[in-house]
Amino acid sequence: MPPIPADRDALGMQRAFEEAEDGAKEGGIPIGSALVLHDDNGDRILASGRNMRIQKSSATLHGEICCLETAGRLKAGVYRKCTIYTTLSPCIMCTGAILLYRIPRVVIGENTNYVGGEELLKQNGVEVIVRNDSQCKELMAKFIKERPEDWNEDVGDE
Amino acid sequence: MPPIPADRDALGMQRAFEEAEDGAKEGGIPIGSALVLHDDNGDRILASGRNMRIQKSSATLHGEICCLETAGRLKAGVYRKCTIYTTLSPCIMCTGAILLYRIPRVVIGENTNYVGGEELLKQNGVEVIVRNDSQCKELMAKFIKERPEDWNEDVGDE
Repeated sequence: MPPIPADRDALGMQRAFEEAEDGAKEGGIPIGSALVLHDDNGDRILASGRNMRIQKSSATLHGEICCLETAGRLKAGVYRKCTIYTTLSPCIMCTGAILLYRIPRVVIGENTNYVGGEELLKQNGVEVIVRNDSQCKELMAKFIKERPEDWNEDVGDE
Repeated sequence: MPPIPADRDALGMQRAFEEAEDGAKEGGIPIGSALVLHDDNGDRILASGRNMRIQKSSATLHGEICCLETAGRLKAGVYRKCTIYTTLSPCIMCTGAILLYRIPRVVIGENTNYVGGEELLKQNGVEVIVRNDSQCKELMAKFIKERPEDWNEDVGDE
């Protein structure tokens, strides 16, 4: 995949944030994700998703997993031309999913409220970009403050 | 969690293998998993699941993910008293899920046909036991030989 300049990240990041906002409106954990294909025709959102722990009583539908599940079955070569966007640093499960499909580029809204598997991604050659986005930070900080038990459950903490 | 002797693994391993067989009968990728709680009342299967790539056109429901999804929302302390069984060495996504929930013990049917994130599990203090089970090996080898494209897709290969 050729280098993707940061000004092309608004499309995927905006969608990921909208997913997070939709999650908040539903009473869910406000983390969203989007998968964007970069090819000769430009950039195209293949799928997006959001954390569904509360809405679907799900232990595995984190934002990124939900996004990849919504994208459905894709050939390996498609993932190789994608960026995955997420409003929050991906946990180790979502990190593993990114590594499984060898998605070469991950754009993260913020990693102030949580740091997941960023180092493992980098060790495996994945480009990791943290945007330090104040909207993402505020939405997540509010949730963690208001609902610490749901948040702890989502990241496997006591 | 106290040490679990290997003779107590028949319960979970048998269920995981039955899930894999059910997957094969459905035309799916024959990998199964089971989550077993060890507590003062003995051993109890909390959930089981199987790879659903073909059946549900799913990119994320590997055997272990399906099993954890079926188990639903659990408190962190429950996972800490569990063994997860899987017929095949867990891929890096499923490895990540095991690490997220800090499941302390993983029993693997076989790792001849595929080796996933076993080293990362061990580096993080997870007990990893490989049973080198001939039934698991034969079921998986047959599938890979007959349907290499579906198998490659499942592990993100071209």
